[in-house]
Amino acid sequence: MLKNLEKYQIILASQSPRRRELLKSIIPEFKTISLDVNEVFPPELKREEIARYLSELKARAYTFKDDNELIITSDTIVWLNDQQLGKPKNAQEAKHMLQGLSNNINEVITAVTLKTSHFVKSFYEVTQVHFKPLTDQEIDYYITTYKPFDKAGAYGIQEWIGQIGIIKIDGDYYNVMGLPTARLYKELSDL
Amino acid sequence: MLKNLEKYQIILASQSPRRRELLKSIIPEFKTISLDVNEVFPPELKREEIARYLSELKARAYTFKDDNELIITSDTIVWLNDQQLGKPKNAQEAKHMLQGLSNNINEVITAVTLKTSHFVKSFYEVTQVHFKPLTDQEIDYYITTYKPFDKAGAYGIQEWIGQIGIIKIDGDYYNVMGLPTARLYKELSDL
Repeated sequence: MLKNLEKYQIILASQSPRRRELLKSIIPEFKTISLDVNEVFPPELKREEIARYLSELKARAYTFKDDNELIITSDTIVWLNDQQLGKPKNAQEAKHMLQGLSNNINEVITAVTLKTSHFVKSFYEVTQVHFKPLTDQEIDYYITTYKPFDKAGAYGIQEWIGQIGIIKIDGDYYNVMGLPTARLYKELSDL
Repeated sequence: MLKNLEKYQIILASQSPRRRELLKSIIPEFKTISLDVNEVFPPELKREEIARYLSELKARAYTFKDDNELIITSDTIVWLNDQQLGKPKNAQEAKHMLQGLSNNINEVITAVTLKTSHFVKSFYEVTQVHFKPLTDQEIDYYITTYKPFDKAGAYGIQEWIGQIGIIKIDGDYYNVMGLPTARLYKELSDL
């Protein structure tokens, strides 16, 4: 599949093991790099504009070494009550976020940028995630056991809290994990 | 969590490794058994009635050995164009099913039955699954590589075909894998 990509050397700029796993399921071979980017965005940006800005910022930070290189960058944000939820700095912040997600709908937006020395293309997907009412006991248990400090919005859909707390989603599940695989596959097919 | 279940000896009647994994994420300890049930249902049944009938049929097939036993049975069906898709008998049937799922919406219904010697309770969840148009090449590749003959509807959402082919779902992802974990957790909490 995706034989049209044979002419590229594909590079994923992400340290997330979940993203690497997901990309591996659609592309057999790629290199992974880490880009040192200061993830700051203009304060007037909202929702998908933030994810797209940060994904493109990461892509711009890469210096091409060869014409056949294709770099894939991405950014996932969690949007709740007209605000972005970042990664929680400590247990207290995580608890506050999860209390906000409880009995509520949040939107997870992942933007992806495909870039070579000749072109650049960005796209994004939105998934709505519906949480049941979470008890304080469930929130405390999750934070203590899973330590979700590396996760935007303080939750992983593939973890316990996703299995017991998310009653439905509307959109792509893998988008919530960090990579909209079906859309990415389509965009890569079209290159 | 679910301390109210401590009085039960929980038994999952399923040979599916996916169901076992999912149940393990919400209950630490349970026994797994295999029930020998002839999965035949009255022809006038439709959609969730089929899943519920088969789940209850499995629960009835169990003979309780102790008052503290709680058995969990379930059945997952795939519903497309007002018909049930079973497990494909061969590659040709799998191809026919996947061609039907292509560029279409199917419904996955999992019914679950909780039964002790004192009570029985059944419930079900529906998830709508939207496939992109699948090419014959993608269908053939999937069947050859993943051999989806043990799967109702000839697909696993957690496999390659789910990652590249499912553009969105509406409902619980884990319900499509075979167990509506959030609903099950809630029903177990309420026991």
